[in-house]
Amino acid sequence: MRAVGLITEYNPFHNGHRYHIQQAKQLTQADVVIAMMSGNYVQRGEPAIFNKWQRAEIALNQGVDIVLELPFAYAVQPAHLFAYGAVKLLAAIGVADLVFGAEHADYDFGALARAAKTVTQDHEHFQSDYRQTFASQFNQLLVEQLGVDLTKPNDLLGFAYAQARVDLNLADQIQLHPIQRQQAQYHDVRLPFGGQIASATALRRQIEQGKGMTNVAQYVAPQMLALAKKGPEVHPFAGAWFDALRYQVLTSSVAQLETIYQLNDGLAPRLKKLVDYYQGASYEDFLAQFKSRRYTKARMQRLLLYTVLQVRPEQIQAVWQHPYLRLLGVTARGQQYLHERKKKLAIPLISRVTQEDVQGRLQLDYQVGKVYQHFARQALQQQFTQDTGRQPIIRDKKEK
Amino acid sequence: MRAVGLITEYNPFHNGHRYHIQQAKQLTQADVVIAMMSGNYVQRGEPAIFNKWQRAEIALNQGVDIVLELPFAYAVQPAHLFAYGAVKLLAAIGVADLVFGAEHADYDFGALARAAKTVTQDHEHFQSDYRQTFASQFNQLLVEQLGVDLTKPNDLLGFAYAQARVDLNLADQIQLHPIQRQQAQYHDVRLPFGGQIASATALRRQIEQGKGMTNVAQYVAPQMLALAKKGPEVHPFAGAWFDALRYQVLTSSVAQLETIYQLNDGLAPRLKKLVDYYQGASYEDFLAQFKSRRYTKARMQRLLLYTVLQVRPEQIQAVWQHPYLRLLGVTARGQQYLHERKKKLAIPLISRVTQEDVQGRLQLDYQVGKVYQHFARQALQQQFTQDTGRQPIIRDKKEK
Repeated sequence: MRAVGLITEYNPFHNGHRYHIQQAKQLTQADVVIAMMSGNYVQRGEPAIFNKWQRAEIALNQGVDIVLELPFAYAVQPAHLFAYGAVKLLAAIGVADLVFGAEHADYDFGALARAAKTVTQDHEHFQSDYRQTFASQFNQLLVEQLGVDLTKPNDLLGFAYAQARVDLNLADQIQLHPIQRQQAQYHDVRLPFGGQIASATALRRQIEQGKGMTNVAQYVAPQMLALAKKGPEVHPFAGAWFDALRYQVLTSSVAQLETIYQLNDGLAPRLKKLVDYYQGASYEDFLAQFKSRRYTKARMQRLLLYTVLQVRPEQIQAVWQHPYLRLLGVTARGQQYLHERKKKLAIPLISRVTQEDVQGRLQLDYQVGKVYQHFARQALQQQFTQDTGRQPIIRDKKEK
Repeated sequence: MRAVGLITEYNPFHNGHRYHIQQAKQLTQADVVIAMMSGNYVQRGEPAIFNKWQRAEIALNQGVDIVLELPFAYAVQPAHLFAYGAVKLLAAIGVADLVFGAEHADYDFGALARAAKTVTQDHEHFQSDYRQTFASQFNQLLVEQLGVDLTKPNDLLGFAYAQARVDLNLADQIQLHPIQRQQAQYHDVRLPFGGQIASATALRRQIEQGKGMTNVAQYVAPQMLALAKKGPEVHPFAGAWFDALRYQVLTSSVAQLETIYQLNDGLAPRLKKLVDYYQGASYEDFLAQFKSRRYTKARMQRLLLYTVLQVRPEQIQAVWQHPYLRLLGVTARGQQYLHERKKKLAIPLISRVTQEDVQGRLQLDYQVGKVYQHFARQALQQQFTQDTGRQPIIRDKKEK
């Protein structure tokens, strides 16, 4: 059986994602569609509007056969680490194709990534602080050297997938298929007039504001609409999360803050001071004060999220050293595929979380999942946590 | 000038406290009344219903000349440590008398404390775990040996003051004056019918429920009533504080929890497990599950408060090693007294908190004050924090 991989967040799932799945099947003629999906937190350093189980279930109903959770250690990271983790794990589960949306679907991303490698080898100074300055300076160099415009968000992600494929020596295993991004722009905050595709950002905003669900109807599947009508599972970072952040910083010494993942380079004392003198301005204002010219807003948000969740570097490194495939949901066809592959897996597949997992390889995902649940609307109604005591969702029937 | 000392919490200030001040003046003919008052947190391990500045101001209006803050390191402790800190600091400011309410005002507390010292010397096994078993076993022994009933809360506190006086060799400096406790019992939860004195517990409950302020009027001064009508400054521990506790424990490892003051003897893993499996029962239920036969409810509440506030043993010990007198408010007569004494003080008097204090001797009080403010109703309206940037309250006129 041939599998196609998708790298997703589904925050929330909308018609653009459905189109992505359909195109993936059509282009590759794959037997199964595998989505590598962010868990309860997304790449930009925010909690997802619905939890991973809610999002996995909808994905299974909309044409995905296997939903795997991209571990927090890869999911809440800059694009190159996000891409690296997702591609590595999709390769481990055996996908032959990777289909992704791009603003420039005509670019040969594989060739660009190979060329970029040569460029960076010729410009050694970039390798030293590669991870820090990737987004801006590195791409500027590529534009100069390769003559392509790599500034659009989906192009950049596609390029990051292609780079991961080069770094992981997967060029023979995985084919890249960029598809043209439809209508909505990634960062659009308002719903478009007409059409069927809106940006996830615009849909999130609509759902968070809790009104105008009739507007949302045309952009999402009925099951998603029903979920949206109940309201977000967690509030955006600005609410109780921001309260928790300030409380956490107030009770931490600078030395304790410096043990947080990536809260280095003088950021810990800066954060401590900002919180100590916080006078009740908005979260946006707080973030603007925390931000500096050296770092992007997304990076600063990730740092604040790491702080709220108390993520430590050794926890991130443990996942990188011992990665795993975490199964959230599967269709009958997906089960058949897993049955075929399971003896060939180089990375362990976790279907049901044990106490040993919680104290071992899954420790970080468990910890951040508990915090998500603590802040969730259904926090006290859910009998089970985000992790222990849950079986993967099994969807028997063919998708509608 | 002669000073009389009172050891207080004023949570909230009521007519019983006013009676206490009047009696103290009458009995001792002192020129000034000095209240050693708990800060934002009280002995039973709870945040005070009004902050220390609000409570100090009312005390100054009701006859106290100098309000000093009993540091957290002494205030939120079992009775013997609470008493030890309060008596030590009152002695340092030079009081000649200590007036306190007791259920048995006829007891000679000084003699009892001296006798108890002999008893404990004769029963060495009590000295080894003296601090753990003080409340029950130790007192049982005293009843047997000395034939007095020391089980009532105010008698016990008075006895603890007398013991501290013995331990600190202050018998020549400080006279003890037990006065008969009026009407209300310490733990009464309902307002009494008639009279002018109700228990602080009953008044707190009434204020927290935010209704029946006409019932409160007869038990408190008009200024206190006005404050009560605005509602409590912080909610009781069960609300947002309990949320914060659970969030804190979820993001802490057992090893991190074990660094909390007194969270030892297997209590850290027990707390972690309780929080991990928390299913939304009430705080009272949670506390009941956390409680064990070995420890009192107050002790368990203090442990949970230490956890929320992230209090560490080295912070407590630093205050014990380098104690200070923290001035919250003063009348003109109080100022005159301080002017007379200030060159003779063996322990430094802090009138205005500097950045050096915040990082030094006042670090713990500053930290816990910031957290109190974070949870306070006026959190975002207060221009200044509980500590830095504030001058002591100065009340020029004679009290009404």
